[in-house]
Amino acid sequence: MENCLIDSAARIGRNVTFGAYVRVYGNVEIGDDCHIGDFCVIGHPTARTGSAPLRLGAGATIRSHAVIYEGSDIGAKLETGHHVVIREGSMIGENLRLGNFSDIEGTCTIGDFVRMHGYAHVGKHSTIGDFVWLFSLTTLMNDPLPPSHLELPVTIGDMATVCVNAQLMPGTQVGRGAFIAAGATAQGEIPAGMIITGPEGEIAGPVRFMMHMETRTRHPWPRHFTDAYPEHARARITALAAEIEAEAAAAAQPD
Amino acid sequence: MENCLIDSAARIGRNVTFGAYVRVYGNVEIGDDCHIGDFCVIGHPTARTGSAPLRLGAGATIRSHAVIYEGSDIGAKLETGHHVVIREGSMIGENLRLGNFSDIEGTCTIGDFVRMHGYAHVGKHSTIGDFVWLFSLTTLMNDPLPPSHLELPVTIGDMATVCVNAQLMPGTQVGRGAFIAAGATAQGEIPAGMIITGPEGEIAGPVRFMMHMETRTRHPWPRHFTDAYPEHARARITALAAEIEAEAAAAAQPD
Amino acid sequence: MENCLIDSAARIGRNVTFGAYVRVYGNVEIGDDCHIGDFCVIGHPTARTGSAPLRLGAGATIRSHAVIYEGSDIGAKLETGHHVVIREGSMIGENLRLGNFSDIEGTCTIGDFVRMHGYAHVGKHSTIGDFVWLFSLTTLMNDPLPPSHLELPVTIGDMATVCVNAQLMPGTQVGRGAFIAAGATAQGEIPAGMIITGPEGEIAGPVRFMMHMETRTRHPWPRHFTDAYPEHARARITALAAEIEAEAAAAAQPD
Repeated sequence: MENCLIDSAARIGRNVTFGAYVRVYGNVEIGDDCHIGDFCVIGHPTARTGSAPLRLGAGATIRSHAVIYEGSDIGAKLETGHHVVIREGSMIGENLRLGNFSDIEGTCTIGDFVRMHGYAHVGKHSTIGDFVWLFSLTTLMNDPLPPSHLELPVTIGDMATVCVNAQLMPGTQVGRGAFIAAGATAQGEIPAGMIITGPEGEIAGPVRFMMHMETRTRHPWPRHFTDAYPEHARARITALAAEIEAEAAAAAQPD
Repeated sequence: MENCLIDSAARIGRNVTFGAYVRVYGNVEIGDDCHIGDFCVIGHPTARTGSAPLRLGAGATIRSHAVIYEGSDIGAKLETGHHVVIREGSMIGENLRLGNFSDIEGTCTIGDFVRMHGYAHVGKHSTIGDFVWLFSLTTLMNDPLPPSHLELPVTIGDMATVCVNAQLMPGTQVGRGAFIAAGATAQGEIPAGMIITGPEGEIAGPVRFMMHMETRTRHPWPRHFTDAYPEHARARITALAAEIEAEAAAAAQPD
Repeated sequence: MENCLIDSAARIGRNVTFGAYVRVYGNVEIGDDCHIGDFCVIGHPTARTGSAPLRLGAGATIRSHAVIYEGSDIGAKLETGHHVVIREGSMIGENLRLGNFSDIEGTCTIGDFVRMHGYAHVGKHSTIGDFVWLFSLTTLMNDPLPPSHLELPVTIGDMATVCVNAQLMPGTQVGRGAFIAAGATAQGEIPAGMIITGPEGEIAGPVRFMMHMETRTRHPWPRHFTDAYPEHARARITALAAEIEAEAAAAAQPD
């Protein structure tokens, strides 16, 4: 903790390590076994007084030049890239991974085991389920008539995938297990388990038909995907996948 | 100013506060009542010698990890997000607000009360009027035949709105009060008060017809918008809005 | 080197200068005449032990808030913007220039004299030839069935140009001297010297027909382009341009 500026009011767990030139403000509770990288700002104050503290769960790895505000509650094992920003007032589950330059704009609700790649921009008041993937440059908007003070935040269901450069228009409700293709624009209600493509956000068919032709590989997520999820996540993946398949199949049936 | 490195040649006003680990170079004039956040670089030197100083107006709030070069002249009450870059040689009006990761590439002219969200990229030599909004991931290009040394910078008229992910091609002249929709590509001359949509940049109609159907709200900007503009901005908004409506109406009339 | 934290194991050449608050880790070899800007992280450790060092060639200029990992080998005269990230395991030629907020994701192969503008995102295992230009917000993907562990990285041939906001789908092979227009989506095999446009990645014709109508300027790259390439690059440009023209002409001929 030489070359760091750590407020004496900050509550810091055991085995917490700091890079160089870290700034930790006072309204902060850091769990055990966290690592905070070089040039990070932890517990950045908000304009309002009396904010809740930043609660950062155990086992976090925060890479350099990250900024995390006071007033968010983040589950265990957060892992961030470099240069990320997490604003105040968000409820975030366990095992969130954020890519470089990603930006969570505040007052969001984010489930467990969410993965975001670089430059992902999550607008204020967004709601994101469990096991959701957001790839690079995805944008979750919230203002249907910009600039206005109307707010129509985006909701993304469990296990949905949003690919590179996709834009989720204000008020989009992405169904569980849906797949928004690279460069697509999604809006309105996206049915569970469906693929959305193109600038008009057309439904291209069910996710279970996705296949990589050269390797004859069916879409491996979520049943066959072997990422480094911890043991206790796997039963949840299996159960959720079954639920989503049933939901998608029911939606595809005429009554 | 402990834990900061501030050149003794820098001219710094009254009630200026600094975060931790701030670097202020010498060729800088900072107005009164500014706050410079942690890990900022203020007055970054350019390659050329004899540059004008960075003049930063009173009341600025610069959030952490920002980089502002020498040789720009910035009006009062600048407010930036984190990780922004402002290069040299720009003339910037009062009350500019910049989102996280936005990038002003230098030698730009920017009016008063401009708002940019995150990852906005303003190419060299761009001209932006008063009360303009640029949402996330908007790009203002300037090279019509990349890579070349031709330069066709973008011009944006007063009170225009450019939505998420819009791309303004080199030489685009956005008329006053025009609205470039999310994901649209604009090029050429955009008439005042018109909506532009889609990858071909088609005119979709006049901005005054925009409405949010669910709430039956007409586009609230600029007449009904109640953002925190200071008192002295409001008379300008009213007068400009009337001018733009007259200009748009005249353009819509056959002779 | 006051206000810096430089590991005593780092090997540092002659005439190397440091900004303020620089962090240099130990597994690093920095060539002569480099400048490392304020708040940079050089030689960031990877998770694995026994990594090769970061080798940074002579004459580099690294601007502030950059992060470069151990385990990459970078040729002479690297020049970066602010807030860039270069991950581990990449082989990079001489005279790479990176714009602000660009991100090279690791284990890439990058030739000589490559230029990238801001927010360029180079996915893992990408291969980029000599004299390639990537403009702002270009994305090189690598996962054809996201999220999966399939890997189909992008390959870009010498002297190709990729314009603002273009997306290169997983497995795209961009031919030498090809031109991917702003906002285009490229996939599959792109013939040498061809222009690709639009969301479907259509071939719009040969690059040699490109012209700026107002100035009657033919596409000046690579024959007439007068950027500040060093003397020894020019003979290579001339020879490569002749090769690519012959390749493109042969591809356009029926047998």
